[in-house]
Amino acid sequence: MKPHGPIPPEFAADAVLTLGGQRFERWIEAAGDTPLYVYDFAIVAARLKALRKAMPKALDVHYAIKANPLPELLAAIAPLVDGLDVASAGELERARGVMAADRISFAGPGKRDNELDAAICAGATINVESFSEAQRALAVGRARGIQPRLAVRVNPDFELRGSGMKMGGRASPFGVEAEHVPELVRMIRAGGADWRGFHIFAGSQSLDTQAIIDTQAATLDLAARLVKQAGAVPPLVNLGGGFGIPYFPGDLPVDVAAIGQALAARLRKLPKSLKGARFAIELGRWIVGESGVYLARVVDRKNSGGETFVIVDGGLNHHLAATGNFGTVVKRNYPVALAHRMQDAGEEVVTVVGPLCTPLDRLADRVLLPKVNVGDVIAIFASGAYGASASPGAFLGHAPVREMLVNIPG
Amino acid sequence: MKPHGPIPPEFAADAVLTLGGQRFERWIEAAGDTPLYVYDFAIVAARLKALRKAMPKALDVHYAIKANPLPELLAAIAPLVDGLDVASAGELERARGVMAADRISFAGPGKRDNELDAAICAGATINVESFSEAQRALAVGRARGIQPRLAVRVNPDFELRGSGMKMGGRASPFGVEAEHVPELVRMIRAGGADWRGFHIFAGSQSLDTQAIIDTQAATLDLAARLVKQAGAVPPLVNLGGGFGIPYFPGDLPVDVAAIGQALAARLRKLPKSLKGARFAIELGRWIVGESGVYLARVVDRKNSGGETFVIVDGGLNHHLAATGNFGTVVKRNYPVALAHRMQDAGEEVVTVVGPLCTPLDRLADRVLLPKVNVGDVIAIFASGAYGASASPGAFLGHAPVREMLVNIPG
Repeated sequence: MKPHGPIPPEFAADAVLTLGGQRFERWIEAAGDTPLYVYDFAIVAARLKALRKAMPKALDVHYAIKANPLPELLAAIAPLVDGLDVASAGELERARGVMAADRISFAGPGKRDNELDAAICAGATINVESFSEAQRALAVGRARGIQPRLAVRVNPDFELRGSGMKMGGRASPFGVEAEHVPELVRMIRAGGADWRGFHIFAGSQSLDTQAIIDTQAATLDLAARLVKQAGAVPPLVNLGGGFGIPYFPGDLPVDVAAIGQALAARLRKLPKSLKGARFAIELGRWIVGESGVYLARVVDRKNSGGETFVIVDGGLNHHLAATGNFGTVVKRNYPVALAHRMQDAGEEVVTVVGPLCTPLDRLADRVLLPKVNVGDVIAIFASGAYGASASPGAFLGHAPVREMLVNIPG
Repeated sequence: MKPHGPIPPEFAADAVLTLGGQRFERWIEAAGDTPLYVYDFAIVAARLKALRKAMPKALDVHYAIKANPLPELLAAIAPLVDGLDVASAGELERARGVMAADRISFAGPGKRDNELDAAICAGATINVESFSEAQRALAVGRARGIQPRLAVRVNPDFELRGSGMKMGGRASPFGVEAEHVPELVRMIRAGGADWRGFHIFAGSQSLDTQAIIDTQAATLDLAARLVKQAGAVPPLVNLGGGFGIPYFPGDLPVDVAAIGQALAARLRKLPKSLKGARFAIELGRWIVGESGVYLARVVDRKNSGGETFVIVDGGLNHHLAATGNFGTVVKRNYPVALAHRMQDAGEEVVTVVGPLCTPLDRLADRVLLPKVNVGDVIAIFASGAYGASASPGAFLGHAPVREMLVNIPG
């Protein structure tokens, strides 16, 4: 038997899994069938409310749409945040549908000319990742007769401790190393661009509160140093994000109140060089991750080699990360439950697998559940981020996964 | 510096990468742009020809379309093989477009009733994976008034040594354990189905020729034992596949001539119980894997922490396996080259990354190449199987990858 991760607090006390005040079956019926992702917007809204309460008032909050780009979700999130961050021309297009372009920023190490062109024509801010990208952006701006909005993505000389994905403190394709940033800022300003500031991202999915506090402090110090060298105050400093969510046994949520207090204290004692700058944090997973549940129905069960397998109608084709095939070395179990018997005592140890003809398709490994029958629904929690859009949906020719947003405001 | 895998023989001597007698640029132009998969059908045809020559005449050859389900490729392969193996109703639909249903078989551990129904109505063979699935299939057949074609997928009590994916010899969601197979065959026959035989798959992607020979022998022994116990001669015994292709440094191709000779010898000395049965092997990756090249264009290059990064316009969103995120624990480099300077001496060590904002998006780690410039095209070889269809194409909102089949017969 192996443990599974913690069920998010909004669902942990359910006898029968309930989303938006309705039992899960209601949403399966509305969607037509399993497999299905359901995202409960009330959880997204609650996370954003808690974040706003914890963080300094002047701090902007951005949503990184890569975490979950579902159009209905973007439309509902947009009024609650100060900016959207995109990573491609495709995401830019989606973001523009719900947010003014001057509050959209575009990061990504390999932006093509047509992507730079789309961003400049729209009026979005481009986080430039290299000198040559800055030159290409300036050239596109000149060709279009439009002043491009350019920020500089900085490859910080430190990393976010405890990150699932380290993105600073090492050789990296992301951003420009701090020592070259002042020169790049001067080039951008001399080139006639509207310089929008810095984007400094040191890692993601950290559950270490103190590490996040330390990283934000180091990021502000770095920004101050860069401003001094560059000789210009950045309109905006995007401090990155990196707040993790609990996925695995023993994971505990980050303490956003503590992060907010520490950040407020730092912002009150800002060095003179940063006076006049705005600050933002950019979160994706933390905002939407716990709102989502993946629901798959049991098609078959069988015993083999003393192990009981429960086979459900969707797997790594829809939820690659839950099968441990997306950036994880050691496979551990996501939070999982039998949707209609969430509080019942465990009766058997089962391995939950998807329908794909590959041993990789394993959603939960030897977990203790109440007796599982064919037709039952298995719920995988913490599935609101990097789920449907980050999975090989066409693999083995199964139908695309359904996605449904519930508890939408208004 | 790290080595990369061996470039397939058909391309290894090219000065400029050539597919179907044309330089690679021709296909990029025809497709409109990079990123692009090009599959050279002449290589597929040559592999099948070599296979037919090596294998006993009476042996059927099946193509497992999960390896690459591109419709044009299926249409070109269908006349050259004896059967197509599918893993979902979606794949069944594609296969039916190019092959008579009685030469299509459907395997997969979690077939839903609507999938069983589609297969039975079409007249395809279902490889049943459990007793309850067999019962559901019989029920569907009765409801439809159609005699279902059912084979039994056997979970063998041995595994294919050296497999990238072990699928036998252990607790598994695939098939029915050998000891229960005779009972299942009797149930299927008593239930009025057209019993089509056995499907015995012990693993995949093995480069160990002797292991494949031993596994085929063990599979035939197992089939003989099962037939004796079941009391009926199977119309077809699908021996599975498992032939690997070279991906990584030091990998050598399997010796199909040796496999064919050993198999022919075994088939000549078949036990009486198996007289009258046909035999098939089922291959996917081995048939198409080396025909495919993934082409991505260099968008930017930069130095960071003493490392040179080459950023191309496609990555794990199109080719998850090449980034080491699909079933591999240790990341090694696929065969890679600078497409217009394949024979030139290495001049620099570079890391090739895709455009995604994640450190996972790494196509080649510290490989030695001639000087790489922006606008150059990087070729990743051995990309014909488990590429486009097995990758998260929607991730980060980039455009879908282009796919092109060249050298099509007729």
